[in-house]
Amino acid sequence: MTRIRPIAPADHDAWLPLWRGYVDFYESELSAEQTALTWHRLLDPQFALHGAVAEDDAGLLVGFVHWLTHPATWSAAPYVYLEDLYVAPATRGAGAGRALIAHVEQWAQEHDAAKVYWLTQETNTTARALYDRVATHTGFVHYEIAVRS
Amino acid sequence: MTRIRPIAPADHDAWLPLWRGYVDFYESELSAEQTALTWHRLLDPQFALHGAVAEDDAGLLVGFVHWLTHPATWSAAPYVYLEDLYVAPATRGAGAGRALIAHVEQWAQEHDAAKVYWLTQETNTTARALYDRVATHTGFVHYEIAVRS
Amino acid sequence: MTRIRPIAPADHDAWLPLWRGYVDFYESELSAEQTALTWHRLLDPQFALHGAVAEDDAGLLVGFVHWLTHPATWSAAPYVYLEDLYVAPATRGAGAGRALIAHVEQWAQEHDAAKVYWLTQETNTTARALYDRVATHTGFVHYEIAVRS
Amino acid sequence: MTRIRPIAPADHDAWLPLWRGYVDFYESELSAEQTALTWHRLLDPQFALHGAVAEDDAGLLVGFVHWLTHPATWSAAPYVYLEDLYVAPATRGAGAGRALIAHVEQWAQEHDAAKVYWLTQETNTTARALYDRVATHTGFVHYEIAVRS
Repeated sequence: MTRIRPIAPADHDAWLPLWRGYVDFYESELSAEQTALTWHRLLDPQFALHGAVAEDDAGLLVGFVHWLTHPATWSAAPYVYLEDLYVAPATRGAGAGRALIAHVEQWAQEHDAAKVYWLTQETNTTARALYDRVATHTGFVHYEIAVRS
Repeated sequence: MTRIRPIAPADHDAWLPLWRGYVDFYESELSAEQTALTWHRLLDPQFALHGAVAEDDAGLLVGFVHWLTHPATWSAAPYVYLEDLYVAPATRGAGAGRALIAHVEQWAQEHDAAKVYWLTQETNTTARALYDRVATHTGFVHYEIAVRS
Repeated sequence: MTRIRPIAPADHDAWLPLWRGYVDFYESELSAEQTALTWHRLLDPQFALHGAVAEDDAGLLVGFVHWLTHPATWSAAPYVYLEDLYVAPATRGAGAGRALIAHVEQWAQEHDAAKVYWLTQETNTTARALYDRVATHTGFVHYEIAVRS
Repeated sequence: MTRIRPIAPADHDAWLPLWRGYVDFYESELSAEQTALTWHRLLDPQFALHGAVAEDDAGLLVGFVHWLTHPATWSAAPYVYLEDLYVAPATRGAGAGRALIAHVEQWAQEHDAAKVYWLTQETNTTARALYDRVATHTGFVHYEIAVRS
């Protein structure tokens, strides 16, 4: 059985290869500095970023979820943006992804949030098979402008 | 010419029918309490929600944009989420929407944000004709879970 | 008996004269705009300012407390700054002030804060008689620089 | 001449002994974990804690200041809480402390804050000789309640 629990300082070395696998999946790269920053944000109780991990029976990390809250114009209560979700390839199909999403939903309820939302590639049919079962595909699509710094 | 400027307390009565037109467009309803809360958030210099309005030559409000910032796991700099954008039907096609987006992009640059993003209905071809010119359609789609309170 | 409970929208008209009494005590003035802003902040669930009120047996408001949290350099957990505390003159000495402070202490504990602190005039012997019983007089004094805007 | 500039990642090794000297001055102790957390918060552009350092002619760090902002009930604009200020003993009296405070005042002005404030031990006559020249001793004293966790 997969067990979900809040991320903890001792998870760093097991979280790191999962995080790298996740970044690779998006064919992206992140600097070691950015990864360290994200790790510290996840662990800081005063930073509005939160994480949980999925452990298998042997206590090995097989997945993670990161989420943050932000206020909204349509709601007194905040929204929860589930920014990152990952399950190690060898463990997929065993319910870890679903349990990680359910954990965030539970957290959102306990923290009086109005909704949980996330974005996923339109072509990611494997993940979307799960998402279509547990969430609403709203029909909204995503645009962005990178800001020149 | 359309002029874009930060929203101000005196804009309330002109902003209100635009806001209602926007909410109607989504075939939604919002309580008067929620509208009042959003208005106060937009005006509070210590709340992470910001607004700008578009004025026509006669000084009449013809549109608005609302945005907020939140931290991210992929970036040291925050993201700007452009949550609401609206231009009065009679004024569309004259560049107000484009100018409102450009205002947010400019704000994001001045505040060292990493990107500006928004969500729009896949079927909103009119708006998307503009968005496709000024932004990147990333191919990400939106899922959500409403939280039972 | 005094009852302490979170501040609520319906408290506005009873809170207002207490707030004015409090501001008068400090021989200060605040604009109606500032009072309205503070009221909205107190009620907004997404603004880091919180309030509670003291009710007497007849359900009349006889006092209030406002507090906020901020991060700190000496602690992973946030500090709670109790910024405003007031009990109507006719009701003093009956435990409302003490109960309001205890409410904030309880809130701080439930929200994993490291400490509750406040500032008071060195010459305010009446209030300090209470504070010396429930809190530690640290021996720190307060300096400020008003910022020219 | 002392030069003041924002704290930067490369300052870690020079900041650390100054921070330890500061903590020692208060006859306190902080865990290595807390020091690491504070360091990461100071460097994170999305955490509401900021730092600056004083460099001497040789480019050696001789002092630091840390500050944060928080909203207030008496002001639309935030307050700046100057939480930590330290100048190495051998360098005192040469204007570094004054320049560090002036840097925070400047920052507060640029960020539309209403005031800068800090707390200091009533018995710290050396520091207070400086503070009495650059700031207002308000006559407020400090109380606190440590929260049992």
